[in-house]
Formats: sequence, C-alpha cells, structure tokens
Amino acid sequence: MLEKYGHGGDLLTAAELYGEAGGTFLDYSANINPLGPPPQVLELLRTALSTVVAYPDPGHRRFKRLLAENLGVDNSWLTVGNGAAESMALLLLAIAPQKVGIVEPCFSEYRQLSVQFGAEVLSVQGTREQHFRAGVEEIVGLLEQVELLFLGQPNNPNGVQYAVEELRLLAQKAESCGTYLAVDEAFIDFIPESERNTLLPELERFPHTVLVRSMTKFYAIPGLRLGFAISHPKLAKAMSGKQVTWSVNGLALLAGEACLTSGRDYEQRTRELITAEREKLRQGLMQLGCDVPPGEANFLLCGLPSPWSAAEFQTRLGRVGILVRSCAMYAGLGAEHIRVAVKGHEDNARLLLQMAEILATK
Amino acid sequence: MLEKYGHGGDLLTAAELYGEAGGTFLDYSANINPLGPPPQVLELLRTALSTVVAYPDPGHRRFKRLLAENLGVDNSWLTVGNGAAESMALLLLAIAPQKVGIVEPCFSEYRQLSVQFGAEVLSVQGTREQHFRAGVEEIVGLLEQVELLFLGQPNNPNGVQYAVEELRLLAQKAESCGTYLAVDEAFIDFIPESERNTLLPELERFPHTVLVRSMTKFYAIPGLRLGFAISHPKLAKAMSGKQVTWSVNGLALLAGEACLTSGRDYEQRTRELITAEREKLRQGLMQLGCDVPPGEANFLLCGLPSPWSAAEFQTRLGRVGILVRSCAMYAGLGAEHIRVAVKGHEDNARLLLQMAEILATK
Repeated sequence: MLEKYGHGGDLLTAAELYGEAGGTFLDYSANINPLGPPPQVLELLRTALSTVVAYPDPGHRRFKRLLAENLGVDNSWLTVGNGAAESMALLLLAIAPQKVGIVEPCFSEYRQLSVQFGAEVLSVQGTREQHFRAGVEEIVGLLEQVELLFLGQPNNPNGVQYAVEELRLLAQKAESCGTYLAVDEAFIDFIPESERNTLLPELERFPHTVLVRSMTKFYAIPGLRLGFAISHPKLAKAMSGKQVTWSVNGLALLAGEACLTSGRDYEQRTRELITAEREKLRQGLMQLGCDVPPGEANFLLCGLPSPWSAAEFQTRLGRVGILVRSCAMYAGLGAEHIRVAVKGHEDNARLLLQMAEILATK
Repeated sequence: MLEKYGHGGDLLTAAELYGEAGGTFLDYSANINPLGPPPQVLELLRTALSTVVAYPDPGHRRFKRLLAENLGVDNSWLTVGNGAAESMALLLLAIAPQKVGIVEPCFSEYRQLSVQFGAEVLSVQGTREQHFRAGVEEIVGLLEQVELLFLGQPNNPNGVQYAVEELRLLAQKAESCGTYLAVDEAFIDFIPESERNTLLPELERFPHTVLVRSMTKFYAIPGLRLGFAISHPKLAKAMSGKQVTWSVNGLALLAGEACLTSGRDYEQRTRELITAEREKLRQGLMQLGCDVPPGEANFLLCGLPSPWSAAEFQTRLGRVGILVRSCAMYAGLGAEHIRVAVKGHEDNARLLLQMAEILATK
C-alpha cells in the first residue's frame, strides 16, 4: 500500500513499491501547487543556506509580523507551527480534550493526532447523496458532545466548502457550548478570494474558533514545514506554551517570509490555473465513467467505475509512474475512491490518458 | 536580557539590544562547531533545494539506516527528532511522568519541557566546590523519587562528564526503581572517543535508559533541526507514537545523511581543534581573573571576577559585537557566571582581548 504512513506524497514508499527512482513520479497523491514555489523563494534559500549555522528565531518574529500585516490581524492572534500538523497537535495539547469530534471523510490527522494525545474520537459522516458533506445540523449535534471539533474548509478529500452562514452558526454554537472549533483552512488559498468562505474577518467574535492554515501546499514547500493558526490570543498563548523551542526551522521561516512578499501575481496565476484545470480534469474523469463530486480545492475525489478498486488501480498507475491517493481507508468512502491533485494541463492530460488505458483493460 | 527565550544564539534579540545587524556578531552564546558544517553538506543542500516541493519521508528511513550503521545499533532503537529538544519532548509525552528529576545547573529545557507537559520538577544541585557537578549518591536519591531523570553528559553549562561506572550505577538504579534515565549526549561528539563516557555499548542491558543526541551542534546546522534518541525499541515506539507526522523537515534529513557520510576527517579535526583551543581559552580566562572549572565540552563555564555581573558584562560585550551566554538564571550558579563557546584561535583571542579591555574598566 502506498499510504504506509497514512498519507499521499510518499515518494520513497512509491519507489519501493513500483521500482522507480523517487522524484521521477508524476505525483497526484499530494496536493501541492503545480507551479512550484515562487521563484524568489528558491533563490532566497540558495543565498541564505549558510544561515543554517544559526538557531532559528524561537519567536518567529519576522515571519509573524509579515503574516499579521498580510492577514490584517494582530501578532498576538498568531501561532506559527512546524507545518499545519504541528498547529493541530499544539491545539490538542493546549485544550487536552477528552472527546474530539470529526466530520468524515476528512484529513486522517484529525483522528490520528487526537488518538495520539489521548482523546476519544466521535464523528458524523457525509453520505454519498450529500457528496460526502455532512449536514450542519449533524455537526451542531456533535459540537455538543465534544470539547474540540475539526472541520476541513475546503474539506479533504472531497473539496467541499461550507457557507459562511453555516460556519457562523457552528462558531456561535461552539461559543454557547464551550467547545473549540478548529477550521482547517490548509487549502483555502487555492480558492479565489470572492468564493472563499472563512470566518477570518469576524474571528474576534469567536474566541473558541481557531483557523489552521498551511504555507506548504499553496507555496509548494511541504519539505520545509510551515503552518500557522489564527485564534484569540488566550488560545494562541496556550498553544505556544506547548510548543518545543526552535520547533520551526530557520529555512522554513525564511521561505515563509519570501512567500508572503512574493507578490500577488503568483497567487493569482495559481488560482486561475487551478480553477480552470480542475473543471477540465473533472469533465475528463467523468467521461471515463468516474463519479466526481464537484470540489472547490486543488484536488478531486473520484469514484472509479465498477469493478475497479482504488488499491488495484493505484498499483496499475504506479507502475506507469503516476501516483494517486487511495481513499479506501477514509471512513464513509468506498473501496473505489481515489483522490487526484489538480496539476497543469499537460500533466492532467497524461493522467487522463493513462487512466483511460488502464480502465480499458477491464 | 539576551536570553529572551531562555537560550543563547538569539541573533535577532541581540540585534534589537545592541543595534547590530544579526549575523555579524561573534556568537559565543551558542555552542556550535566553529568549523561550520562539513562542506559537502551545504553543497548537497544547494543541489537538493528543489526537493522542498515534496513531503519529507515520515519514516526518516534513509537517515535512520545510516545512523544505525554508524552507531552499530538496530533501526528499531532509534527515534529521529526535530532537534534534540523534540526528542526530549517525545520522551515526556511517551512516559507522561508526574515527577521529573534534574541535576542542576543544567540545560534549561529539561525543566521547561517538563513543566510544559505537566510534570513537577525535583532537583539536586552541584556545589561550587564540586565544580557544580552533583554527586552520584544524590542523583541516586533523586532517581527514587521521580519517573524520569535528565542528566547532561557532558553537562551544559559546566561541561563535566560522569564516569562510565557512575553512569552504569545510575542506569542500574533506574532499572531497579523503574525510573527512566535520559542521558543528554548533545555535546558528546566533541569529546575524543577515547575520553568519551557513554552507556551506548551496553545500552541493551538498560531498557529504562535513553540517550539523546543532537546533529546540529557538532555538524553546525542548528537552523535545520535534527536530533535523535537511542533506546529500547519499546520506548522508541512509544516516543514515535507521540510524534507529529513530517515533524522532521526534508532538508534536515538530507543534511543529516550528508553529515554521516562526510568522513572521519572533519570529525577528527573538530575534536582536535576543540580540545586544543579549550585549554588555551581556559588559561586565558583564568589569567583575566575568571574562575573557570575544567570542562570537557566545546564550551566553558566562567565566573567573572568581582564586582562584575553576567548581565552587565554581557551588555558590554554585546556592544562590541560579541555575544556570551549569561548563566545568572541557572539554578545553583551565581550572578557572575557566563558561558562561552570554544571557537577557533583567532576568535578566541579577540574574545579574550575584548574581555580584558572591559574588565580593566572596573
């Protein structure tokens, strides 16, 4: 199985399984910006390599300042993490919930981290008819039973968003029952601003709501690890209080600073590319007989036509050098589900061509 | 105060305090190999920068394999950490001790992390007469009262080692009372192998003993974060079980692999330089009227002559571009204690010269 560690993007396991040298795969199993990092980021890292002889700033001060300006929030609302995954871990350590709620299918780390830090996990599930998007009433019911609830916005692996009114309702409910609501916005930067649903502008009203974001997917630097959380300063302080000194490495901080100052053009081009190519890729997949719920992120959930299973199909694609994510292990999804990233036009065309060839053999 | 975050090596705070651009300081406050990283490490990072677009290997497989060969232990005995500090945090999370023992004065993270993760800290202290090195009998007494005990070997900030017989006695005692003994060997690579005291060759006999090591000090890559722990596989597994996925970044893993294959020459040269220069630096400091216990690591604890305080002296040195670590906040040490790293001959000469000038003003 490619998901040896429960995730996509594992080139080493892919090389072990499919016998190709890591790095030569066309990787549709991880959802990374196909444009690669902003050019000035790699340039900066190249000139700044010698800074690895110094400790990182334990206060993340320069990056945090830029981030605060960028988001229009005060410094005290930010916690910088060693990847969004660490931000989630800090949240669990700070709140120490006995029960955590998750809305499945969802990013596997919500459950994994909760269990890791000793919590019991309760969940609600979206149905096939709902494109695997659970209803808000069910989530409200779950909020009442837990101390912390994770919600993906847009959600991984189906790419759906909740409306702002729905998020607001959840945040209000979270306040009234004293539950923390963690909205995972790791992929929200891929959505054009006019279509993006976030509570960021009204976060001051919701001290129990925390937004978790990632720098590594949109800016294509997952190898460096950089994420952050936006929350009421009291929660931010509690999260920092659980963080290990120097947890965020120096090159990640420098790269993050370069990303935030790399200009709007790269961001704009990314969103245009993803929006256009996602729709074409979806049409292509449906023409192959796949069931593809409409998603708003830089990936698509894809139900393979019968009798294909994700496991077999993944292996077949892997052997021709393409990696996709099997979603068979996601609660609520079937054995036929895979997830594919949205990449540039040529790559997507190659994916569709290879998929067509494999599907034609059965 | 330079130690805003409780540690040395904070160039940004130094720049704020002393008005110099970070990076131009002569930094004696962090204990990093003065030779800098092995040349092939920076070279490899330069050519491998584009790998930041991929996730790090969550299993740290290649680095771990090299490390296992290098140390002569099985893979299953190793836990790779995002710096030695994370390794210590994982230990605390895995064991979840209610009481932790520390042997002061010592690295501030032993206490900091223990408190962070909810433990009560008990301690014994070395006295001035013992060069601030607590007796083994006292440590044995402490072992009986706690579930986890941290011991620096060599210890920071005084650079002393315990003898192998003493360590063995402590490890045996730890077994008999079911206490975990964490020996922090972050600086042990700086000690010539013939003079190095470690339980590594007999670790199989002590399932309650864990050795924590750092790659960042000896190989001069603290900005990247890389450490590891060696322990019985049962404890190693419990520690990994608390680790956040992708916690160790990709460039750190690559750099670590390059360090381990960089050849013995660099390591040999480092140890010869440190051994020779430490003794000269110590003599120089004593000639200035400082009280300098003999240390075996790449730093020296230094008691300033009366009436100087570490705080004032640090500021005076900072203003001429040299950073030293104030040790006034270490339990058991006085307001007159600073710690200085051991660097190359010219730098050490500049330090001594500037110190002499400042000391002459009072």
